[in-house]
Amino acid sequence: MRKILLIGAGKSASYLIKYLLEKSKEENLKIIVGDLNLDNAKKLIDNHENAEAITLDVFDKESRQNAIQKCDIVISMLPARFHIEVARDCITFNKNMVTASYISKEMQELDEAARNKGLIFMNEIGVDPGIDHMSAMHVIDRIRDAGGKMILFESFTGGLVAPESDNNLWNYKFTWNPRNVVVAGQGDAAKFLQEGTYKYIPYNRLFRRTEFLDVEGYGRFEGYANRDSLKYQSVYGLDHARTLYRGTMRRVGFSRAWNVFVQLGMTDDNYTMDDSENMSYRDFVNAFLPYSPTDSVELKFRHALKIDQDDMVWDKLLELDLFNGQKAVELKKATPAQILLKILMDSWTLSPEDKDMIVMYHKFGYELDGKKHQIDSTMVTLGEDQTYTAMSKTVGLPVAIATLAILNKKIVTPGVQMPITREVYEPILKELETYGIAFSEKEVPYLGYNPLNL
Amino acid sequence: MRKILLIGAGKSASYLIKYLLEKSKEENLKIIVGDLNLDNAKKLIDNHENAEAITLDVFDKESRQNAIQKCDIVISMLPARFHIEVARDCITFNKNMVTASYISKEMQELDEAARNKGLIFMNEIGVDPGIDHMSAMHVIDRIRDAGGKMILFESFTGGLVAPESDNNLWNYKFTWNPRNVVVAGQGDAAKFLQEGTYKYIPYNRLFRRTEFLDVEGYGRFEGYANRDSLKYQSVYGLDHARTLYRGTMRRVGFSRAWNVFVQLGMTDDNYTMDDSENMSYRDFVNAFLPYSPTDSVELKFRHALKIDQDDMVWDKLLELDLFNGQKAVELKKATPAQILLKILMDSWTLSPEDKDMIVMYHKFGYELDGKKHQIDSTMVTLGEDQTYTAMSKTVGLPVAIATLAILNKKIVTPGVQMPITREVYEPILKELETYGIAFSEKEVPYLGYNPLNL
Repeated sequence: MRKILLIGAGKSASYLIKYLLEKSKEENLKIIVGDLNLDNAKKLIDNHENAEAITLDVFDKESRQNAIQKCDIVISMLPARFHIEVARDCITFNKNMVTASYISKEMQELDEAARNKGLIFMNEIGVDPGIDHMSAMHVIDRIRDAGGKMILFESFTGGLVAPESDNNLWNYKFTWNPRNVVVAGQGDAAKFLQEGTYKYIPYNRLFRRTEFLDVEGYGRFEGYANRDSLKYQSVYGLDHARTLYRGTMRRVGFSRAWNVFVQLGMTDDNYTMDDSENMSYRDFVNAFLPYSPTDSVELKFRHALKIDQDDMVWDKLLELDLFNGQKAVELKKATPAQILLKILMDSWTLSPEDKDMIVMYHKFGYELDGKKHQIDSTMVTLGEDQTYTAMSKTVGLPVAIATLAILNKKIVTPGVQMPITREVYEPILKELETYGIAFSEKEVPYLGYNPLNL
Repeated sequence: MRKILLIGAGKSASYLIKYLLEKSKEENLKIIVGDLNLDNAKKLIDNHENAEAITLDVFDKESRQNAIQKCDIVISMLPARFHIEVARDCITFNKNMVTASYISKEMQELDEAARNKGLIFMNEIGVDPGIDHMSAMHVIDRIRDAGGKMILFESFTGGLVAPESDNNLWNYKFTWNPRNVVVAGQGDAAKFLQEGTYKYIPYNRLFRRTEFLDVEGYGRFEGYANRDSLKYQSVYGLDHARTLYRGTMRRVGFSRAWNVFVQLGMTDDNYTMDDSENMSYRDFVNAFLPYSPTDSVELKFRHALKIDQDDMVWDKLLELDLFNGQKAVELKKATPAQILLKILMDSWTLSPEDKDMIVMYHKFGYELDGKKHQIDSTMVTLGEDQTYTAMSKTVGLPVAIATLAILNKKIVTPGVQMPITREVYEPILKELETYGIAFSEKEVPYLGYNPLNL
């Protein structure tokens, strides 16, 4: 039996474990699921004969090393900052390793040691990062093989609610880490490249500078820019591309309404508000508006942000019950972002019957035979229920498939890496298709930002 | 001869030295001016017989301690972060000390040592902080003495250009540290108290939430909120006040136009722009606007910020030559704030004949005999020329007067302190009046924010 140690039995582990257990007989696998909470681990393996649940505290060196030593490969689904101790043990005990997280500086520093020992440390192999890398490189390599020269690459991903569960005015519910949604885009200005020019968008303009994206069968979405669209420029070999843009997808209208919170300062996570535990939702909103003994919070709000009464943004705000003077915040020493999160959780928490959806949209612009071309490639995955979500499927399956491919020596190149080589993405994308995670491509007229070459 | 050591012969030292030299005969003073640049120091003392210029590097412990040991009192006009070494030496060698800077945490920690040795460490005794403290406490103490109860305190200061030199559309030139003007208001949200309610304004709304202030003989100004209006709440004994607001004064219309830079992200000092050394002013502006092969930077700008062509804001921007494609930024790896600063310096640098102006406006609201009252108190000081500026006068004179008062044992209470006690502010305010730095008070109907008690 080949032993796979999975550390961290969180939300994204369900599909991953399901896949590995289904393969466990034909592939002769034993899956050891280690979590701080033994019940979490037990629930996911459901007494499967080829699985074992163990209590594992990643900060307890002895039990961690003990578990790692006994296995053939390690999957870490812990939060990214906890991977490094596991990774160092994998170097010590000669184990391959798989994570769905961004390669940290500390992880990258293990590259030479991993190479020297012939170990594969596969990272960024979830959905975003993960499927985005693989599906992008798949098309980029094909364009290059045909003699094309990449001039534009745009890539958008969204974690949204499935159409059948899409029943609020924001067309949005929390399907992943809600806090990340509230603070999204804060910090340095978003930076990207358009027709050879670097462009910068500060946080307070981010949600007003969106692009529309139409996905066949699913209608129109919008995308706002990620912090750093140039992060993978060199990695993807796009040093000469004239347009690079990475973004996050929402349903049209989300960003314009969200911008209201940004403008008033309600997403700020850097200071705590006085007396937050005794505030009502209405008090919270009012703290960002001028004092008036007579004017209502509603009118001050509409005036400050120039929102007409028949503007859909206003209906979205009312739907959140934002002006309720009876509902209490009840959070001590809370930041604006924490309070806003609580208010949003009332409205945007998935119901037991709700399903989620992952949407991805790539645009590839290239020159071939003196002409400009564009391929648009889209992927939509729907969740099945609240355990087997689209998120857990698109994160967990690539991790699971890569793990087995490494065990079976189909992926052999050592080092700290992400899935951008054919060796990795070809078999994985192919197998993902059999699970319904497939990209739909179409050739479209090249648009870019200067279609007439002016 | 009593020896006064002045460390730092910068912009704000001119009036300070002038005052001390004028008093040097009758008061039997010797003024030693130490600066890293000996010429700076020499220029300011102009061969006066009771003065000496020395080279002083505050980081050279030996020469610093040598100079401090030989004097009777030390004035540090260095940037605030350099005071602490001087202060520690003053503890060691039993010297009193005066600075115009905010009391740092490190400075505050010397309080006990200073008290134990009977030393006076007077800080925050320039204009803002300084004259604001003294003039505010002067009125607050008087109101309390009469049995009044403070319910409102607002205080605004502005460093502006004198009316006779006010000849651009912004009604503004750099009269002090230009960089501070460009990054003013960044960081945490501005926080203040209005009628018992805490209010918060994020940076991107700060310049749209101004108050108007009319100063007799000088017309209308506007004020935007400082970061922390509650900083002196306890120090001033205003724990029960229902409104506390501190702000910065500009001429009306400045903030609305400045907000354009804030909105586009042109004041950001946290990241450097690619290829900034090869940018024109126009390129710089364009980096914050969407790419277009055809639309002009001007139209994109006006569209993004909804500026009509006949809006005065637009004329202000044109006056800065912001859209000039020929003028080069010429700064390597510059932040947006650094580039904007360079552009502004072209237009807002004082001409040799220009004069500056300091304006201060306090509002004191109080209850007395069951009625609400308000006193407004204003001060305007005009500069004489580019050496004897209003800024150097209002910063330097209080420092100089306090230094002499300490030497003459008119100020005797030891400890790390700011000028909020009668012992300090009474003689200083009185003497400042003889130099034309005087407040004009008037009783006005109490307005506050809820005049009708609704």
